[in-house]
Amino acid sequence: MSVALVFSLLDYAGVFFFAFSGGMIAARKSLDPFGAVIVGAAAGMGGGTLRDILLGALPVYWVNAPEYLAIAAAGAIVGYYGSALLTSGTGARRAALAWADAVGLSVFCVLGAQAGLLAGAHWSIAILTGVMTAAFGGLLRDVLVNDVPLVLREEIYALAGLAGAAAYVFGHMFALPGGPLAIAAAFLAFAIRAAAMRFNWTLPSIGKLD
Amino acid sequence: MSVALVFSLLDYAGVFFFAFSGGMIAARKSLDPFGAVIVGAAAGMGGGTLRDILLGALPVYWVNAPEYLAIAAAGAIVGYYGSALLTSGTGARRAALAWADAVGLSVFCVLGAQAGLLAGAHWSIAILTGVMTAAFGGLLRDVLVNDVPLVLREEIYALAGLAGAAAYVFGHMFALPGGPLAIAAAFLAFAIRAAAMRFNWTLPSIGKLD
Amino acid sequence: MSVALVFSLLDYAGVFFFAFSGGMIAARKSLDPFGAVIVGAAAGMGGGTLRDILLGALPVYWVNAPEYLAIAAAGAIVGYYGSALLTSGTGARRAALAWADAVGLSVFCVLGAQAGLLAGAHWSIAILTGVMTAAFGGLLRDVLVNDVPLVLREEIYALAGLAGAAAYVFGHMFALPGGPLAIAAAFLAFAIRAAAMRFNWTLPSIGKLD
Repeated sequence: MSVALVFSLLDYAGVFFFAFSGGMIAARKSLDPFGAVIVGAAAGMGGGTLRDILLGALPVYWVNAPEYLAIAAAGAIVGYYGSALLTSGTGARRAALAWADAVGLSVFCVLGAQAGLLAGAHWSIAILTGVMTAAFGGLLRDVLVNDVPLVLREEIYALAGLAGAAAYVFGHMFALPGGPLAIAAAFLAFAIRAAAMRFNWTLPSIGKLD
Repeated sequence: MSVALVFSLLDYAGVFFFAFSGGMIAARKSLDPFGAVIVGAAAGMGGGTLRDILLGALPVYWVNAPEYLAIAAAGAIVGYYGSALLTSGTGARRAALAWADAVGLSVFCVLGAQAGLLAGAHWSIAILTGVMTAAFGGLLRDVLVNDVPLVLREEIYALAGLAGAAAYVFGHMFALPGGPLAIAAAFLAFAIRAAAMRFNWTLPSIGKLD
Repeated sequence: MSVALVFSLLDYAGVFFFAFSGGMIAARKSLDPFGAVIVGAAAGMGGGTLRDILLGALPVYWVNAPEYLAIAAAGAIVGYYGSALLTSGTGARRAALAWADAVGLSVFCVLGAQAGLLAGAHWSIAILTGVMTAAFGGLLRDVLVNDVPLVLREEIYALAGLAGAAAYVFGHMFALPGGPLAIAAAFLAFAIRAAAMRFNWTLPSIGKLD
């Protein structure tokens, strides 16, 4: 499998799973199917759009690649109607949403870091563009439906994206081969996020002040 | 009337009416006049700003065309002080806001689709830029004052913008003359939105899940 | 001190103090330290990022200047842990946040106006880019933690930024020397904001309508 193909497949997967999470949350909020596509497209395409704007890669990637809109719409619709099939209740639906979100997060932190490196940014900035690409779609999704964003509620979230982005950036410094490196870095982010979800890991915060 | 003049007049009308809706909502939320201008300018100029950013037409259009800021400020002030004159009560004010919003939506879905086509985007993407241009100003307005966005509350809203954008894009494929086509497509969007408001049309949504 | 140095120091100060305000609000909302850095970086770097996007100065400034991320992270961490040291209670913490925010506002209204003039914008637009640069970081900070934005709650806020931006733009028209002019304009904005905070100045708003 060529490196370019690996990156394309990761990208499509990220768009689909984030859009799926958007469709699920739209169902939870009783939006109509069209609203589900809006929220799903924002979730799936928001991160890469922000990345392209910040780095000046305009027009943004999906303007000349309409397949992304189709993938996002498909993911949103599957998530929207699929959530009604999860008859085991709220817990199962919330878990499915969180797992789909974790896949998108893991993939996009790597793709965002790669885009930063390609644009010639400093390693710390490439990690930042990775985290922003990974977190922004979900942030937009949650703000649109008026939820407190998962990235601020969940303590090991941006941190998982940061780990994936940093692994990719440092692996790149050591000239590791791009395709396997990207997959390994995405798996690292996913493993951290999954462990945090499974074992309820948290970071120490200072106590309540007000 | 030249085609360019038609598009300019539609654009000015969209900015004015969206800014008017922003001024009205600022009055409802008891903001001061300066806050009304902020919300009005965000509503009137937000959609076109997002369109220009996504398509890479930078600096954004109003940087070199200060008349847009003047039109937005005027619309916001008229909406802000005008809302106090609607002494027939809350219902009349909400209706005036929704009708002004519908005018902006109808005009901007066409202008956004046209900008997408001019940038060489695929027809499906030109429709998307139309819907985003139409919906983003109102979305920004509602998020700023902490309301659930009209585009997510109202079921036939983005859909009306989609119809107007699609009509423009398909008419353009058949080489229909630009000025009349733009006006007809905007009227189509307005008619759908008006009928949805008048007759309380809704889309089927899946039931409450949680 | 050279003019370029004055502008750099103002810029660093604005990033630091806005990030400090973001760290303090993150502590109030019981976010973890990593969330504090996210909110702080959004507050400190959001305004300049929007300015660069609107004016087309891409990639945005911090992509090739990683020191800004370091300054923002430092400001956020100091604000986050510092807020626990203000044992005199909620009032002292809210005041510290508001004063840090006022410093950022005062500095960024001038830097945003200068960027608008450099891009060749009309004087009214340079004032607008000044106000937007000054207000957007704090807006993003407040939206992220789900507060009503200070810029919409506080009546003499955007107005203070407007005064600073206008003073810079008009001073520039009269060819006043850049460094002292920037400092004087920032002080004007700060003095207005400080007086409004100290004496609870408000603007007349129309009464409650709904």
